[in-house]
Amino acid sequence: MKIKEIRHLSVPVTGNIANAVVNFSEHTISLVAVITDEVRNGRPVTGIAFDSIGRFAQGGIIEQRMVPRLMAAKPESLLAADGAFDCARVYACIMRNEKPGGHGDRAAACGALELAFWDLNAKLRDEPAYLTISRAFGTTPVTSGQPVYAAGGYYYPQDGVERLKQEIRRYKDMGYSAYKMKIGGASLSEDTARIEAALQVAESGANLAVDVNGRFDLEQAQVYAKAISPYKLRWYEEIGDPLDYELNRVMAETYDGPIATGENLFSTQDARNLLRYGGMRKNKDIFQMDPGLSYGLTEFSRMITLVEQAGINRKFIYPHGGHLINLHISTALDLGGCEAYPGVFEPFGGYSDECKVIDGRIHPGSSPGFGIERKNELKPHIARLLA
Amino acid sequence: MKIKEIRHLSVPVTGNIANAVVNFSEHTISLVAVITDEVRNGRPVTGIAFDSIGRFAQGGIIEQRMVPRLMAAKPESLLAADGAFDCARVYACIMRNEKPGGHGDRAAACGALELAFWDLNAKLRDEPAYLTISRAFGTTPVTSGQPVYAAGGYYYPQDGVERLKQEIRRYKDMGYSAYKMKIGGASLSEDTARIEAALQVAESGANLAVDVNGRFDLEQAQVYAKAISPYKLRWYEEIGDPLDYELNRVMAETYDGPIATGENLFSTQDARNLLRYGGMRKNKDIFQMDPGLSYGLTEFSRMITLVEQAGINRKFIYPHGGHLINLHISTALDLGGCEAYPGVFEPFGGYSDECKVIDGRIHPGSSPGFGIERKNELKPHIARLLA
Repeated sequence: MKIKEIRHLSVPVTGNIANAVVNFSEHTISLVAVITDEVRNGRPVTGIAFDSIGRFAQGGIIEQRMVPRLMAAKPESLLAADGAFDCARVYACIMRNEKPGGHGDRAAACGALELAFWDLNAKLRDEPAYLTISRAFGTTPVTSGQPVYAAGGYYYPQDGVERLKQEIRRYKDMGYSAYKMKIGGASLSEDTARIEAALQVAESGANLAVDVNGRFDLEQAQVYAKAISPYKLRWYEEIGDPLDYELNRVMAETYDGPIATGENLFSTQDARNLLRYGGMRKNKDIFQMDPGLSYGLTEFSRMITLVEQAGINRKFIYPHGGHLINLHISTALDLGGCEAYPGVFEPFGGYSDECKVIDGRIHPGSSPGFGIERKNELKPHIARLLA
Repeated sequence: MKIKEIRHLSVPVTGNIANAVVNFSEHTISLVAVITDEVRNGRPVTGIAFDSIGRFAQGGIIEQRMVPRLMAAKPESLLAADGAFDCARVYACIMRNEKPGGHGDRAAACGALELAFWDLNAKLRDEPAYLTISRAFGTTPVTSGQPVYAAGGYYYPQDGVERLKQEIRRYKDMGYSAYKMKIGGASLSEDTARIEAALQVAESGANLAVDVNGRFDLEQAQVYAKAISPYKLRWYEEIGDPLDYELNRVMAETYDGPIATGENLFSTQDARNLLRYGGMRKNKDIFQMDPGLSYGLTEFSRMITLVEQAGINRKFIYPHGGHLINLHISTALDLGGCEAYPGVFEPFGGYSDECKVIDGRIHPGSSPGFGIERKNELKPHIARLLA
């Protein structure tokens, strides 16, 4: 088997929404296809994946640096003994002649590509990706559905607590029982009013997480911590700059509820620094590294190993970025759960019709691979990519 | 004044050379031009800059994300009171809607662009960039030349200690008196033989630094440390992964000579972590962050502030990446010195004919801006960029 062609499409994300730091109206996501010479049902077996939300499409890095390396590799050098792709070898090939450090955009570029090979391997076996992934890592996939929460509660140009309540009610009607909302983009009094409104629908603080997207300095972080502490929230997320491990350590020491971070750490090296310096409390605080932004599943699996070596149960890993891809990864590797953005960040934000959300748990479908082709909003983009 | 157009060219770096981690035969560098509507001598005033060596050209990020933001900005929103560009505002505009963390490729993309505005500001005043930079930061530029060392000693496909000696002798003939060579890409015995050969020309360990490019784990780092300790070398550079601050701390504690690191830390946040956790010894160990890879001079100046706040003299900052740009920055801000790659990494590697190396010190020329247009090897590329 060999790669015939690799294609990339930059897909705009819909919606004029903002968190405390960025507005998403100009955001894009990389959609990639790896087309092989293996033919099934008259069509070439093709792996499809995307990076994740928040860090832009990476067409330049993918097309100029990474695809040429894959196309120049001897086909057999990328394969495993069973004839499928060896994703660790694929990863090493993508990263040939890249210097250490600087885990930013290239990590997302590599993530989209590497994940497409997992989709491809699953399609070669005509099975959903979570089965392929669990076989590769020797794990037992979860069969009872994975906990999923609805992430939303962004700031909108026309905003108010009633809109926020309606939004959370909509998630509840869809089967979700846990939610996440943004804070830190308004005044403390406005934000606490928003939290209290959301709690009216969420019913309990245990069902509602809040996310600062890295905006606070230590003083603001502590002012908010004091204000939100009585709500006993699910977690307090990305409180300060993602690389400010000292702030994280102080917050873990002083805030009594769980904290969550890691979505903007894109390598094993960065995750190790969080473990070394960030004061994360064992089996209480939450890790949110995202395979699609972190060189793909091979690198992400190394992060899981590190977290477990630190004596932390992998159930405390909830990958950032909902979507179909992390649903399969979380199900295969028995992680804490996954994140959905129902109705926001389309065409990538939610799941497809074959993924059922029941009582706050989500069940992957049975389509081969990640089942990305099943998601209606993505169909026209995939058609364009493959045209 | 307003920006009429911003252009980007990806320029291949010449040479089939390798350090311990990467081969540079497929490396590229971003060359950018910011063309304004301000006309001098019948030509539009145009700022020209590039990122730096080692992290590839960034055409995708520059053209798809950053240039549109600059072109969409109100022209006056980017200007200072004196009518020149306010580079801090330019930087903020380039980074609009970018999330925190992930300081990799985008830092180089932004660096090339931001530095072009410094070149532009200097050309508006018809003065060399070091004068513009020292005025902006309230510093007194160095007039006696800046210490410069010749970085080379790479591994070549056809290699030997005689070739290495000839290389260092060539640098000496050019006026250099300090040198740097790669180690860690061969066996310890081969590397010590190379070091001893280089020392025959360099005369003293104080004139020769060695660079591992982040390859060693702690055990290898300590084996080499023990072996090279008797040579009393200038410094032992980037010993382990750039984000492995704990390895750096242990090496600073156990190796008696100076160590150097930082060229693969691209943000104030990462540099702060090196200061917090890396055990860098005050006014002994060397910081090597590179403006061209680190969002430009605005961000780099914040790193200098952090280093000084830690009680460290700015003379212990030697920016990575030689070239004309860092020569002006180091001269303007009175840093420790700068790096040259004579004859390697062309067309970017050395200096232009107006920059004299005398007794190990380098003197910038008097051309307006960074004087990039004066470098013969770059002339055809600049002509293509502006055609």
